[in-house]
Amino acid sequence: MRSTPLQGKMGESMKLKVKKLHFASGRPIAVLDDSTALGLGVRPHERIVLRCRGREVIALVNVGWHIPSDVILVNDEVVDALKVENGEEIEVVPTPPPESIEYIRDRLKGARLSYREIKKIVEDIVYDRLSEIEIAALVATIYQTGMGIEEAYYFSLAMVETGNKLELNRTPILDKHSIGGVPGDKTTLILVPTIASLGYTIPKTSSRAITSPAGTADRAEVLMPVNLSLEEMKEVVQKTNGCIVWGGALYLAPADDKIIRVEYPLSIDPFLVPSIMAKKKAVGSTHLVIDIPVGRGAKVKTIGEAHYLAREMIEVGKRMGITVACALTFGEQPIGYTAGPALEAREALLTLMGKGPGDLIDKVTSIAGLLLSLVGVEKGKEVAKHAISKGKALTKLREIIETQGGDPKISPDDIPIGDKKFTIYAENDGVILWMNNKLIANIARLAGAPKDKGAGVLLHVKLGDSVKKGDPLITVVSEYSTKLQTAEKVFEEQPVIGVGRPEEEMLVDIVPAPRPHERLPIIER
Amino acid sequence: MRSTPLQGKMGESMKLKVKKLHFASGRPIAVLDDSTALGLGVRPHERIVLRCRGREVIALVNVGWHIPSDVILVNDEVVDALKVENGEEIEVVPTPPPESIEYIRDRLKGARLSYREIKKIVEDIVYDRLSEIEIAALVATIYQTGMGIEEAYYFSLAMVETGNKLELNRTPILDKHSIGGVPGDKTTLILVPTIASLGYTIPKTSSRAITSPAGTADRAEVLMPVNLSLEEMKEVVQKTNGCIVWGGALYLAPADDKIIRVEYPLSIDPFLVPSIMAKKKAVGSTHLVIDIPVGRGAKVKTIGEAHYLAREMIEVGKRMGITVACALTFGEQPIGYTAGPALEAREALLTLMGKGPGDLIDKVTSIAGLLLSLVGVEKGKEVAKHAISKGKALTKLREIIETQGGDPKISPDDIPIGDKKFTIYAENDGVILWMNNKLIANIARLAGAPKDKGAGVLLHVKLGDSVKKGDPLITVVSEYSTKLQTAEKVFEEQPVIGVGRPEEEMLVDIVPAPRPHERLPIIER
Repeated sequence: MRSTPLQGKMGESMKLKVKKLHFASGRPIAVLDDSTALGLGVRPHERIVLRCRGREVIALVNVGWHIPSDVILVNDEVVDALKVENGEEIEVVPTPPPESIEYIRDRLKGARLSYREIKKIVEDIVYDRLSEIEIAALVATIYQTGMGIEEAYYFSLAMVETGNKLELNRTPILDKHSIGGVPGDKTTLILVPTIASLGYTIPKTSSRAITSPAGTADRAEVLMPVNLSLEEMKEVVQKTNGCIVWGGALYLAPADDKIIRVEYPLSIDPFLVPSIMAKKKAVGSTHLVIDIPVGRGAKVKTIGEAHYLAREMIEVGKRMGITVACALTFGEQPIGYTAGPALEAREALLTLMGKGPGDLIDKVTSIAGLLLSLVGVEKGKEVAKHAISKGKALTKLREIIETQGGDPKISPDDIPIGDKKFTIYAENDGVILWMNNKLIANIARLAGAPKDKGAGVLLHVKLGDSVKKGDPLITVVSEYSTKLQTAEKVFEEQPVIGVGRPEEEMLVDIVPAPRPHERLPIIER
Repeated sequence: MRSTPLQGKMGESMKLKVKKLHFASGRPIAVLDDSTALGLGVRPHERIVLRCRGREVIALVNVGWHIPSDVILVNDEVVDALKVENGEEIEVVPTPPPESIEYIRDRLKGARLSYREIKKIVEDIVYDRLSEIEIAALVATIYQTGMGIEEAYYFSLAMVETGNKLELNRTPILDKHSIGGVPGDKTTLILVPTIASLGYTIPKTSSRAITSPAGTADRAEVLMPVNLSLEEMKEVVQKTNGCIVWGGALYLAPADDKIIRVEYPLSIDPFLVPSIMAKKKAVGSTHLVIDIPVGRGAKVKTIGEAHYLAREMIEVGKRMGITVACALTFGEQPIGYTAGPALEAREALLTLMGKGPGDLIDKVTSIAGLLLSLVGVEKGKEVAKHAISKGKALTKLREIIETQGGDPKISPDDIPIGDKKFTIYAENDGVILWMNNKLIANIARLAGAPKDKGAGVLLHVKLGDSVKKGDPLITVVSEYSTKLQTAEKVFEEQPVIGVGRPEEEMLVDIVPAPRPHERLPIIER
């Protein structure tokens, strides 16, 4: 009901003296004194045009106090754009808010957005014309009402169109993505060379860990540089058919990175589908398998929920010209026996050398088989198994390592692992009934992962294994004693791995009656 | 579906060297280099505890680049809290997000919030534990689904409890509020001394203009200081029964100010009801009239919508122990003949001297009458008229002016008005059919109001007046020629005042057929 911010503040302008903040923020930012902002008629999170000697840039307004009234503080992005020095005078003019704010407001009122509107929103996000408050309102409304196929497709498309693209001029282009949430998932490190060794193109971009002990980029970085440019990535793929590079600096679907910055503090991710689909389309993927780990400790808790998500991604993929299949995988325990960059890189290498754990091999070959089936290969799982057991996949990985600038002769023993360790042992006989994935991830992070590559956890058991009292269950590995001690404390506070006999212990836990004023939690969707 | 940000980042800590930013931001803020933040395991908008020599403060994390990895940039709030100097080392520890983020997420999922949860959210807003992204998500979800009586009451109560209170130990305490949106509304300047002159207590706090040419605080400031402390305000009311002070620095319902900072860029105000009710409760109001101007150019467009809003405020008032009545007033043209701080202060003074325009006098006395009826005064409108016509209200205003520190002898001619002017004349004979309130407000702002107190607009006509071609319609007044020219341009672009003959001109405007890809606008509620 309030009038738009544009009202009554066109036309005013001021000359202000530059003072450099001496840091970059990812977008042009200016800080004005409260009184200066009042004089200009601008408020926090609004936009001003800064002009100097024929150059201009739009900056977001921050308002402060105790700043001289003739001074404007500017970050490195402004300095770089205007080429100004401390004390130089620049012209400052308020600028109207982008029209995409109206679309976000319409969405809050219940409208669904057209492609033209979504394209404008995404452009304004990419070019830093929307503030994080405005993006947060968008994220909130989409989370609250759901995105739906149509909007998910529009956002995916708009994100692709506003970013870089990998132009390989090949077809088919295979790809794989995991929505994550299970510690120790080194599937990609094995799957990419397996597929590439069969002559298929798989230009894999990966992320670093945010809340987990290792992302694929962190794991791969133990073996080779992953911070490649788009041009370098292209060369690697043209030479080897595959690559494993960090996607964060490639400017593929850059709107997504800015949306994630806002989603993260709220711990919600309503842009999951476009985020995945846009990045895949940007590298030209034509055939894609999405791994949805399902389980209590994973992101997706139930098969039903996984099917819902899968349908969305398949449907959006169809509209984008990508053949998508989804693999629902068992996500109630870590994949293989390790979590942490170096431990996982070692386990992946060992697996390619024929010494891998059963669940990891099955996961890799199942997904590889599904992916190969999309391009008409029959018995793809067997084909993939063969590529691994005959050493073709290992040879391909070494080729990729070399082309990306790593040491192709690296052996598992060359990979340094932290030398500070402690082990937790079974307190009674029984069967491994459950593992708390989130706690295991936390412990690995407290031990130092992903920053300390040699930190992490090593499991001695998997679900269903029988153990005797005193058998080792899990070893925490760290590069620093202090971090090891911090990680150790978790075991004192909460059970991490459950050992028991279900036929004797049906009571798993007790939920006490709520205290007055306590509200029952919302069931997670 | 993503795990909470808390996951896996407890326990890490770092020593960093302080570098001062040399400005205040309204809350403690620290800027870390991207790599330093990664090492600490914190991300933008998360919180860190800063410790130094026994002192500590929680700061919000900003992430930048090009900052030395052993340096932390801090604003004045951090410097003041820790008493640190440039180069001093401080301890930096990540801290978990406040639990109120979970309540906001629950609200996004469809839950309604309990009082305990709302209290926690409001506290975390007041104490700067929630970032603006998190507040934006709250604002968005409340806008999207509506607040309802229960939540509005809880928010009002929580806002009162987390701010200052005016303790007058008097009863009844009368009050008046306008939800605004009509230019030239100087009702309060006349109503407060009228009510106070009748022996009733009316401790009025007012706001400054945000998008309008003048707020009540801007108008009153032409006559007297309005930037009083709570203690000073109390003294004025104890002496004169009334006051007109700026509410922005009194720390009444401080959560509201922080919420408004986030609502503003989105041009939405879902917290309207608690925002009003909390500030009234904080000054101890027992009887309150809320003015809801209704009309095409006002905030509220229709009578139906006004009734809905009125019911909400009456209901929330009841729960807070405030007797509320709402006055729906005609809002299709400015009140009186002026808009702009000095022009309006002059018109208010003249009105109290018996030389006021009919619509303004009727508005003041109608609202005063309604307010007096709440405390059992019969024929209150006549009583108020009498207080004005007999000069009692003027004497009271001069008393308030003197007690607040202004010149009690001020006459309308003492008030300086801008000397740059231009006038728009009728281009044909006819009747004044409509005025565009928003454009009139814009023109007054472009002319310099509210910053230039002497700027604004002066109407020569009101709705229904008959004019001849060449009669003056509106004069724009400014202190600067450049601003006058900017304001003048508006008239070239859009009609501001409609002169015509409805019996001959039924076609008001034409909406062309939409172009392909153009979506019809959402009808404003």
